[in-house]
Amino acid sequence: MFTLGQLAKQGGGSVVGDPGIEISGVQPFELAATGDITLAARKRYLEDLESTGATAVIVPDIHSDEKKPLIRSANPKLTFARILALFGAKPFRNLGVSHLASVSETCRITEPVSIHPFVSIGAGVVVEEEVTLYPGVVIGNGCRIGAGSTLHPNVSLYAGVSVGKGVVLHSGTVIGADGFGYVHDGEKQVKIEQGGRVEIGDYVEIGANSCVDRATFGTTVLESHVKLDNLVHVGHNCHIGENTVIVGCVGISGSVTIGKNCILAGQAGVSDHVTIGDNVIVMQKTAVTKDIPSGSRVGGPYSRDYRSELKIQAVTQKLPEIYKEIRRFRRMIK
Amino acid sequence: MFTLGQLAKQGGGSVVGDPGIEISGVQPFELAATGDITLAARKRYLEDLESTGATAVIVPDIHSDEKKPLIRSANPKLTFARILALFGAKPFRNLGVSHLASVSETCRITEPVSIHPFVSIGAGVVVEEEVTLYPGVVIGNGCRIGAGSTLHPNVSLYAGVSVGKGVVLHSGTVIGADGFGYVHDGEKQVKIEQGGRVEIGDYVEIGANSCVDRATFGTTVLESHVKLDNLVHVGHNCHIGENTVIVGCVGISGSVTIGKNCILAGQAGVSDHVTIGDNVIVMQKTAVTKDIPSGSRVGGPYSRDYRSELKIQAVTQKLPEIYKEIRRFRRMIK
Amino acid sequence: MFTLGQLAKQGGGSVVGDPGIEISGVQPFELAATGDITLAARKRYLEDLESTGATAVIVPDIHSDEKKPLIRSANPKLTFARILALFGAKPFRNLGVSHLASVSETCRITEPVSIHPFVSIGAGVVVEEEVTLYPGVVIGNGCRIGAGSTLHPNVSLYAGVSVGKGVVLHSGTVIGADGFGYVHDGEKQVKIEQGGRVEIGDYVEIGANSCVDRATFGTTVLESHVKLDNLVHVGHNCHIGENTVIVGCVGISGSVTIGKNCILAGQAGVSDHVTIGDNVIVMQKTAVTKDIPSGSRVGGPYSRDYRSELKIQAVTQKLPEIYKEIRRFRRMIK
Repeated sequence: MFTLGQLAKQGGGSVVGDPGIEISGVQPFELAATGDITLAARKRYLEDLESTGATAVIVPDIHSDEKKPLIRSANPKLTFARILALFGAKPFRNLGVSHLASVSETCRITEPVSIHPFVSIGAGVVVEEEVTLYPGVVIGNGCRIGAGSTLHPNVSLYAGVSVGKGVVLHSGTVIGADGFGYVHDGEKQVKIEQGGRVEIGDYVEIGANSCVDRATFGTTVLESHVKLDNLVHVGHNCHIGENTVIVGCVGISGSVTIGKNCILAGQAGVSDHVTIGDNVIVMQKTAVTKDIPSGSRVGGPYSRDYRSELKIQAVTQKLPEIYKEIRRFRRMIK
Repeated sequence: MFTLGQLAKQGGGSVVGDPGIEISGVQPFELAATGDITLAARKRYLEDLESTGATAVIVPDIHSDEKKPLIRSANPKLTFARILALFGAKPFRNLGVSHLASVSETCRITEPVSIHPFVSIGAGVVVEEEVTLYPGVVIGNGCRIGAGSTLHPNVSLYAGVSVGKGVVLHSGTVIGADGFGYVHDGEKQVKIEQGGRVEIGDYVEIGANSCVDRATFGTTVLESHVKLDNLVHVGHNCHIGENTVIVGCVGISGSVTIGKNCILAGQAGVSDHVTIGDNVIVMQKTAVTKDIPSGSRVGGPYSRDYRSELKIQAVTQKLPEIYKEIRRFRRMIK
Repeated sequence: MFTLGQLAKQGGGSVVGDPGIEISGVQPFELAATGDITLAARKRYLEDLESTGATAVIVPDIHSDEKKPLIRSANPKLTFARILALFGAKPFRNLGVSHLASVSETCRITEPVSIHPFVSIGAGVVVEEEVTLYPGVVIGNGCRIGAGSTLHPNVSLYAGVSVGKGVVLHSGTVIGADGFGYVHDGEKQVKIEQGGRVEIGDYVEIGANSCVDRATFGTTVLESHVKLDNLVHVGHNCHIGENTVIVGCVGISGSVTIGKNCILAGQAGVSDHVTIGDNVIVMQKTAVTKDIPSGSRVGGPYSRDYRSELKIQAVTQKLPEIYKEIRRFRRMIK
């Protein structure tokens, strides 16, 4: 339970109405009831604030209607996310180390931790305080797991992986498997041994069944606050900058460098050794085949500027008509 | 062992020849031997029924040749699938609860069940009769698993997931991981807490290493008889209608609604908040970027009508020739 | 520790300088220090061999500079991979069978093996010598694992899978899940039972979270030395020839035949029943929709010859200009 004033302060906004009103939950606009706060993000919600059952509504700070208790915010969605986090916060539960876990004697574990049944922890692993390892998690030798991190069921870390503080790895994700490199000797594929490691920064979150490969030499790096969705593949020796967001089913080849604050949309792919700058937006299904300068927005099969790509696509739709016309010209010329 | 008459009855067809003939197995046309029944689906098989060693053959009901014992069917492939199911049926094996499983005392388990070693079941979980949980399956708190369902090795269910009757989840699949939502606060990505859940209908089957995310609020829903292949990603708050089939490596963003009886072919992708009607066919690798009306067939990078897309692609192949001609016109005009 | 002469012999090259020099490690060009050997693959490295701290350098055999101890090789990258393998070789560690593993009494296990905690092995399984099964590996009934193979954490093998010698399966990979096949009976999807199996040849390596489905009938086959990256999907009844390399996020439908020594680049997809010859290169994101003859290189949404595809793409970029010109012609004609 929070007061409207507390929520405005924590969420970054200003109160319209009584700041002492008590709020007990957060719900979407159409489902909210008495005691709830909600978000009016769409125009049709803003035009009809009285249609929600919510006690209070988060609105853009340019919104002038004052019929309901409000929180006005320069970034309503952000205010909403922050308030949701206040209500949704799951405090760490100290379950200790299950007697059904297999923990090497050479580990260094700082209590309190929650290590569930059927977790396996290799030699020399360091687990900091308030770490939660769900059932089936496997931690290879020499890994380090930072304070407050959560590894969901059946996550696998190969040897030597370093995970920062406050990291969340969802089920089935694999960190540190061998990078993919072979040389054909004329008869068969010869493996290039992958002796490097992986370093995951603080507050990184990785979705389910994603993969981040170890480096051939050196380190594959995800900087702090990087967010990966489900089924994302990050090849060996990649370096991904702070705050970059990578959506589901994206595939990133080896030795790719990506800057800060980028967004790679779903099913995009990046060729090996490519460098992508900061603040780049890669549209869905794009094939990034060349370096992309900072601030660009690219799309399509050859990672063209997105506006050019849209123009090209618009004309592409007219191709049958164009071809008809060409044949008409040809006949006229004859 | 079944008689030809029994198979025709169960499979939905009519017998040509002696309905008392005994059939002991099902094999493909070229491998079938005495005692087997097979399917003649292709024209070249139908034209040469005597080339199979099978004792009996399933054929379309318009087929007039009667040299072999036959089952004539309006839908031979369906008749074949039904007969295959008769022979392939694996009856439930009651192995009880392994002493190597970790089962919360607050679960409600209805015997008979098969709970293998290293299965972990959280608090308040309901497991109905004839459920099989293979090794490494992890069931979060408060989940419900309907009668006759099978969860293959290393499947993970997060808390609060509901699974219907007769469901099959293949290895490594993850149900209920957090949806993917963040708001950038100018410095870092702020997570939008994902407090919703997932509901899987009856007789759903999901392939290996697929992911269905929990809703932000409310419920991500797969209706009954939905079939997902391997490595499919379904985002938060999606709703997928009955009988819809989603092929391998498809990625579906958040808040997508898909109707009944649709087919999404391999590596298709769907943008967030899109609505797809009933009986829609989405071709391989299509990017569905806008709403699709019922009964459509769409393809290509902008989910165009598939026939238009094919025409466009046909002309696309002529582009070098078109460009040459344009330059010729240009020279003539000069 | 090896001498330069030993490395040249094992790596396939000839020594320039003293073959008795001792080499203690392998490092990349820019990180190498005294005692290391390195590879000079790029031109700028070859032109400035003295800029590396390495004691010796692997160079192409046409390289004439002799300022440093060298290994000259017709295939420097291959020589490098072989030398890396000498240093990186991880000898088998005999850990025996963990008392925390669940092993059926009817298994046949040939010591020495390393079977980690929480491994589950079904009835009738054969495990040959020097096999390593990491925590969370699940082996279904009747599987066979060849000598020297390594299954990383949380790999799942369904019943009846056969794995050759020296195979590496990375974490989360699933072999033998049901192929994807249904027939719509007018009301619902009816499953086509998948009664076949999977056979993995010798020295195959499969990345993390990949899937190879069992055949409907018969066998899905990966021949020896096939290499699959992460998140690759191989459908039922596929047959993949020796040495073929399949890069991350590729999806292969059912009943596809792929020849020897092919390369399928990232996010390519192959339609069902397609046959691809030997030595074929499929470029990234290609949709292979038809048979591809041996020796081809194909790309784009309709698996066209890659050079044609590049020409088409070059003209595609000019489409807005072409359309402008067409309209100009149209006006002139009027």
